[in-house]
Amino acid sequence: MALRVFLSRVTGNVFYKRSFCSEGKTNIHTRIVDIYNSEPVGSHLLVKGWVKAMRKMKEHVFLDVSDGSCSKKLQVLISKSRQPKSLTYGAAVEAVGSLVTNTNGQLELAAENVTVIGPCIVIDGYPFAPRKSYSPDYIRQFLHLRPRTNAFGALLRIRDAASHAVNEHFRNNGYIHIHTPVLTSNDCEGAGDVFQVKPENEKTVKDMMKDGMSMDEAYFDCNTYLSVSGQLHLEAAVRGLSKVYTFGPTFRAENSRSRLHLAEFYMIEAEAAFIESLEELMNIMENLIKNVTSQVMQKCADDVELLHSSDGNEGPVVSLLQKPFEVMTYEQAIDILGRHSGNFVSQVKKGQGLGKEHELYLVKYAGDCPIFIVDWPSDIKPFYMKQSLQDVSKVSALDLLAPQVGELCGGSLREDNFSLLQDKLQKSGLYEALGWYLELREYGNVPSAGFGMGFERFLQVILGIPNIKDTIPFPRWPHNCKL
Amino acid sequence: MALRVFLSRVTGNVFYKRSFCSEGKTNIHTRIVDIYNSEPVGSHLLVKGWVKAMRKMKEHVFLDVSDGSCSKKLQVLISKSRQPKSLTYGAAVEAVGSLVTNTNGQLELAAENVTVIGPCIVIDGYPFAPRKSYSPDYIRQFLHLRPRTNAFGALLRIRDAASHAVNEHFRNNGYIHIHTPVLTSNDCEGAGDVFQVKPENEKTVKDMMKDGMSMDEAYFDCNTYLSVSGQLHLEAAVRGLSKVYTFGPTFRAENSRSRLHLAEFYMIEAEAAFIESLEELMNIMENLIKNVTSQVMQKCADDVELLHSSDGNEGPVVSLLQKPFEVMTYEQAIDILGRHSGNFVSQVKKGQGLGKEHELYLVKYAGDCPIFIVDWPSDIKPFYMKQSLQDVSKVSALDLLAPQVGELCGGSLREDNFSLLQDKLQKSGLYEALGWYLELREYGNVPSAGFGMGFERFLQVILGIPNIKDTIPFPRWPHNCKL
Repeated sequence: MALRVFLSRVTGNVFYKRSFCSEGKTNIHTRIVDIYNSEPVGSHLLVKGWVKAMRKMKEHVFLDVSDGSCSKKLQVLISKSRQPKSLTYGAAVEAVGSLVTNTNGQLELAAENVTVIGPCIVIDGYPFAPRKSYSPDYIRQFLHLRPRTNAFGALLRIRDAASHAVNEHFRNNGYIHIHTPVLTSNDCEGAGDVFQVKPENEKTVKDMMKDGMSMDEAYFDCNTYLSVSGQLHLEAAVRGLSKVYTFGPTFRAENSRSRLHLAEFYMIEAEAAFIESLEELMNIMENLIKNVTSQVMQKCADDVELLHSSDGNEGPVVSLLQKPFEVMTYEQAIDILGRHSGNFVSQVKKGQGLGKEHELYLVKYAGDCPIFIVDWPSDIKPFYMKQSLQDVSKVSALDLLAPQVGELCGGSLREDNFSLLQDKLQKSGLYEALGWYLELREYGNVPSAGFGMGFERFLQVILGIPNIKDTIPFPRWPHNCKL
Repeated sequence: MALRVFLSRVTGNVFYKRSFCSEGKTNIHTRIVDIYNSEPVGSHLLVKGWVKAMRKMKEHVFLDVSDGSCSKKLQVLISKSRQPKSLTYGAAVEAVGSLVTNTNGQLELAAENVTVIGPCIVIDGYPFAPRKSYSPDYIRQFLHLRPRTNAFGALLRIRDAASHAVNEHFRNNGYIHIHTPVLTSNDCEGAGDVFQVKPENEKTVKDMMKDGMSMDEAYFDCNTYLSVSGQLHLEAAVRGLSKVYTFGPTFRAENSRSRLHLAEFYMIEAEAAFIESLEELMNIMENLIKNVTSQVMQKCADDVELLHSSDGNEGPVVSLLQKPFEVMTYEQAIDILGRHSGNFVSQVKKGQGLGKEHELYLVKYAGDCPIFIVDWPSDIKPFYMKQSLQDVSKVSALDLLAPQVGELCGGSLREDNFSLLQDKLQKSGLYEALGWYLELREYGNVPSAGFGMGFERFLQVILGIPNIKDTIPFPRWPHNCKL
């Protein structure tokens, strides 16, 4: 590290001496992922991480050390005489020594010295003991310690890689990332299950309140909610940028404690101009899902395997994602469900939405393959979906159903006919609130289409994770907002 | 496009005929950015976009067409006799023709046919007229139409490129992206200026309310707020993954209508284990800022120039970001401010925080260069900052001040001494709420450091944008939450 002296360009005074170099060189310890990728045998290294397992032999102690940079641990060998006092499972350590190949042909650090940075006294209340495996339900009770466990560390690396692959996919296809707002004065689908927001500080509220307004309206001059979707905002941006997407937190205030719902979850939403058929939209969706899945499986093979072998996970369903997705109409789906109702699946009437049970039955029927259900009755779909040109009782909408989760994505062509949209807004009482949305169709309008995909459900599908709470670092669900 | 017939693998029925190909080929029109990058003169093309300018000559009409894929427009030439009726400024059009080089040496589409997809009747209330420039304050009144303007389209492309560069920088340096939660039961800095959240639906609240709890606590069994920082959550994740970052929306319920504040803004926060000096932290921060800035300037040169030439912007301050950042201690800063108070800057007492005026004065004093102020009095900094080893009245904290905005980043070493942290939590009344945070220091603890940078302020600095509301697609500030 070169010391760099900073001179004020004004006074010539030395304020503060500072060493400056690129980040890699500042951290003079070597990351374990880099050791496996590029460090040659014989290198003299400093390693920092946590003890994941410890085996005492006659003269030596063997440590498996992880620094979270990859799923692999580095075996560290230290002679018993040099073993520090508080060296235990769970402790943070640094080890200095030479990289060697052991008799099993594996890389190993023959350590001259091991220092305990932070001890870990398990009997003091640390909830994880060595050589034990725990259920996801148990581990989830300790959200602040969960990132240290092998399986959840793997999940976090996979989630990072999947996020990256989503961004890369859109970027490579010409989409611009738009940060759609979390706070919004409108509620996209007219549903009642939104969270409402106001300042905690009552003095702020009172200072800001205008005549005739409620406490809830004081800060923004209107009732304000947490976004359930960025779609309407994307539709504004797409009429200038042609292709846009967003990837951020969305919220539902439902009292649902299923293994498929969270109060706060991430949604990937894309919108493209000049799209005029559901076929084009299906291609966009199928390409995204297949590309991201294959990126994750390639780049995180070790982590996916680790997750698969850990307790409670059913393993990835990748093979299914390599088949072409199936397609059927809503009417065909109802027909199939009708023919099999009673024996395998409960009844559903034409015109109704599908329950989770029906969704999963259709996926099974299609050979455990993701399946698009297209051409839905307009009565059970939101106002912004485009009326079908063939059948005015239908909209050009689709749901994508997938193994494990049922509904994974929803999408549609958007209603681009000004009068039809105006009528629908008036009928649903949204005309005043969404005047701006209607106005998008008034000036330089274009046909557009888009979809949303729940990111956590996507992770459930590709990784075979039964409970959605095990796909997000800090899950929020009814009666649970720890940390 | 090949037609692909989907057969159910179970029944052999054809459900739906579907064409399938990669996205690029589905959209048979060519994006303007691709025309400038790779289409050879002589190509026969279909282009779709919006008319940004229109000039009528004797026999021809010249259109400048943009599709938002880049700042450049494509000139389209159509003979007057083939000009469609509603062809005006602002209309959405498709044009088919041959790519030629015109007499000025520029690419041009000699169109055989131009069709209006969506007309734009300016006199009907469209707020932007041809050949007029508007102030950012005026344009901001029409948030839903703002993405169509040249300058804001450029801003959105730059914001996308900057987000991408941030993610790439962290990825290349071994950081894992953690989605820290928006909903949280704790308020990181003990400040009162947070938004509080509850379900809008009163029935949900009543159904979920347990005995002795308020309406606000019903959904999550506790008061719940919008996050002001993901730092504490990152500190949990870093003790397993070594290097982590987050990049998402954060919230302040302040009644501040300055040109530097938003109620919802994006924050980049990073946390790294095994960091033991402010020098290392400063290097991490300076590397990030310089790398992202240079990426943006390289990849968005046209957009940056367009933004610079548009009304109300002072232009980029890139040159400053190429100098090494200055460093001084808090005490040196107070001394300098003291010597110059009265004439140029108002007084500030030792032990107090700095006002915006003081921050900007120090930046000016340092030669209009970003400057780190280090070693702050512990009394005016939050509980999690590490007590200085040299002076117990100080903490190892830093602020980075920058031109145009003053405070751009804040960071610190984190208190890793269990007893000192316990004392501080007890004194600030946070001991019960943050027991989990203290526990991070109990098991396998490591030294760590981190910082946060406001993304919109960063855009203000590198682009010279006076008002923060012009750096985010849908700004939220007191009395304003449109759309």
